[in-house]
Amino acid sequence: MTQSNWSVPETEVVQQIRDRLDGDGIDVLATIVDVEGNAYRRPGAKMLLDEGGAGVGSITAGCLEDELLSVGDRVRETGEPELVTYDLMNDDGEDVWGLGVGCNGVIEVLLEPLTETYRSAVEAFFGGRDVAVVTVLDSGGRFEQGDRVYYYPDTGSLVSPDGTDASGWPVESLADPAGELAARGKAGTVSLPDGGDELTVFVDGLAAPDELVVFGTGHDVRPVTEFATKNDFRVTVVGFRGAVDLAERFPEADRIVTTSPAAVGEDLELDDRTYAVVMTHNFVDDQLTVESLLDAGVPYVGVMGPRERFERMLEAFEADGRKFGEAELSTVYTPVGLDLGGGSPFQIAHSIVAEVLAVSNGRTPRHLKSREEPIHERVDVESDADPPAQ
Amino acid sequence: MTQSNWSVPETEVVQQIRDRLDGDGIDVLATIVDVEGNAYRRPGAKMLLDEGGAGVGSITAGCLEDELLSVGDRVRETGEPELVTYDLMNDDGEDVWGLGVGCNGVIEVLLEPLTETYRSAVEAFFGGRDVAVVTVLDSGGRFEQGDRVYYYPDTGSLVSPDGTDASGWPVESLADPAGELAARGKAGTVSLPDGGDELTVFVDGLAAPDELVVFGTGHDVRPVTEFATKNDFRVTVVGFRGAVDLAERFPEADRIVTTSPAAVGEDLELDDRTYAVVMTHNFVDDQLTVESLLDAGVPYVGVMGPRERFERMLEAFEADGRKFGEAELSTVYTPVGLDLGGGSPFQIAHSIVAEVLAVSNGRTPRHLKSREEPIHERVDVESDADPPAQ
Repeated sequence: MTQSNWSVPETEVVQQIRDRLDGDGIDVLATIVDVEGNAYRRPGAKMLLDEGGAGVGSITAGCLEDELLSVGDRVRETGEPELVTYDLMNDDGEDVWGLGVGCNGVIEVLLEPLTETYRSAVEAFFGGRDVAVVTVLDSGGRFEQGDRVYYYPDTGSLVSPDGTDASGWPVESLADPAGELAARGKAGTVSLPDGGDELTVFVDGLAAPDELVVFGTGHDVRPVTEFATKNDFRVTVVGFRGAVDLAERFPEADRIVTTSPAAVGEDLELDDRTYAVVMTHNFVDDQLTVESLLDAGVPYVGVMGPRERFERMLEAFEADGRKFGEAELSTVYTPVGLDLGGGSPFQIAHSIVAEVLAVSNGRTPRHLKSREEPIHERVDVESDADPPAQ
Repeated sequence: MTQSNWSVPETEVVQQIRDRLDGDGIDVLATIVDVEGNAYRRPGAKMLLDEGGAGVGSITAGCLEDELLSVGDRVRETGEPELVTYDLMNDDGEDVWGLGVGCNGVIEVLLEPLTETYRSAVEAFFGGRDVAVVTVLDSGGRFEQGDRVYYYPDTGSLVSPDGTDASGWPVESLADPAGELAARGKAGTVSLPDGGDELTVFVDGLAAPDELVVFGTGHDVRPVTEFATKNDFRVTVVGFRGAVDLAERFPEADRIVTTSPAAVGEDLELDDRTYAVVMTHNFVDDQLTVESLLDAGVPYVGVMGPRERFERMLEAFEADGRKFGEAELSTVYTPVGLDLGGGSPFQIAHSIVAEVLAVSNGRTPRHLKSREEPIHERVDVESDADPPAQ
């Protein structure tokens, strides 16, 4: 890392954290822990700062990054975490609008030396496991600022960075908020009664990335893989019949799988994190693939091609004695993509990835200006932050 | 061009045509002139084939590209254009579904040696001028297959490739269909009475690309420029107050303009092709920019930030004695972007570009599976083609 790279997919920030844990020198990890008012990024947004003064990831659209680099130097020197508050309101308590969105409100940032205490988080993230990183911000003296523990929703366990059981931590009161934030990939500040004291922790939910599995190896596949990886999906390209050179042809893919249409259900782990786009351009291959995906109950099955083609597929299923219920068929999106009107390979890919993103986030595609609710969901465990928009 | 590059933005195919006109060797240009049934690409889709057997652009998702390379060799040798029909129906006149979407139906492809007769088209395209390339497919003998003329809707003139007036061509009957296809960037086959004969021409409308002007130089700008260029917008990044290194920081941008917020209306040509995203993160800069954009009547003004911020901007306008009507304000999209739910810089950019694409194509964002009408607009001048979907 020698040059700053502010705008990177989130998975790349986590990847960089993983790489730097094995690297030389001491990096500093900056994480937004709280936001009041409107801001470009949300709690949990991260930036990694190296000794050379370069950063990866962004916390604002450029308002605080330079300032943070200098605080980072101090943290690196002392080895102690710091919680820094940037108050960008004016004296009347109003947002300083001249500073603009992204530089508004009050932003609280935790800066800490990147140490081994963070490794379990990145390993879980890339291992497909949700995790919440729980960090002490304030306590009655029982903990120090920066003390850390992990919560894994799949096992319901609270684990110390060294892998041992986190005895002494209030696991009962932490389990619910930490589990929810981990599953949703959201972050927030949580205050809990802890004996007679109050314990305030920052819960940083790292949801393992969703997987986009693209079935097909045509020229139209690469734009989909490009856009999907930029949008933080882990992308698998599946080729049939000994398709060759796939790693070379789809360099953006995280994984290449070569299998046969009949073995899709066996050779891939299909679960509620699997978003699938079926674009083999071969009717029978598509049909076998769709059958496996519907059997596995994945949340999204995009099928390239006109509506009539899928109707014909349903007829073929029925002829084979297969019938799918409404719930299963509601996961099928065909023609695939949002209605953006573009016809080039990249425009088609843009509309596909936009649809996958909307479905994975439970959103109804429409203009944000038509949306009634706040853009960012309110994190329920956080009672003091306004729900900001952009 | 030494390696095939099938999936590229359309503007890159046209750029490649321009480059190759100045290059060595004879390239062959393949253009879809007609499609019956369902196909991945539409009439007007282009592929450029070089002597080395490499291609840029795609006509199908990979079904015919190899076949076309060999026909291309023949065309290069004879120097004569060829109109080739690929019938992928079976004997019963049904689509061979096993071949899948993208390889269905009947595709008619014009292959021609790329010569100077094509130069005016690419120059107009990059010069921001709509043009229709009119090519003879069949006539009563008055023209040869491949004979060519240009129609420019802005001047209503029909011009020969050598720049002279195209006398002898039926300009009156061509003007309407050619003008419409050029403005919409669509292509189709048109049959006209020509004396006692029938003249059948392929009209390939090349709409000059729309321009996306991004106001702002924050870290959040580059992902927008990346996605927008892939989606065939000509992208201009506008920086204020002597912002530096912009060309380096935004390598994907087609153009960098440094100006002041008050001079936006003067320093940029803002017209009905201008889509603007305002993301300076500075309230006053945004306000001055929005004012110029609304005065110019551009079709899309995306403004980063929450709804309340724009309401405050309207108050500031009113305090200055400026009031905008409903028609003007209907072009403002704030918060900017479609509701896809993502919060990373790339996800925000994806939602912005998706919105610009939808607005520029006159589409209502929604799942394609919810759309009642055919996905591809029917080209009215073409009476024999089904309106296909994907």
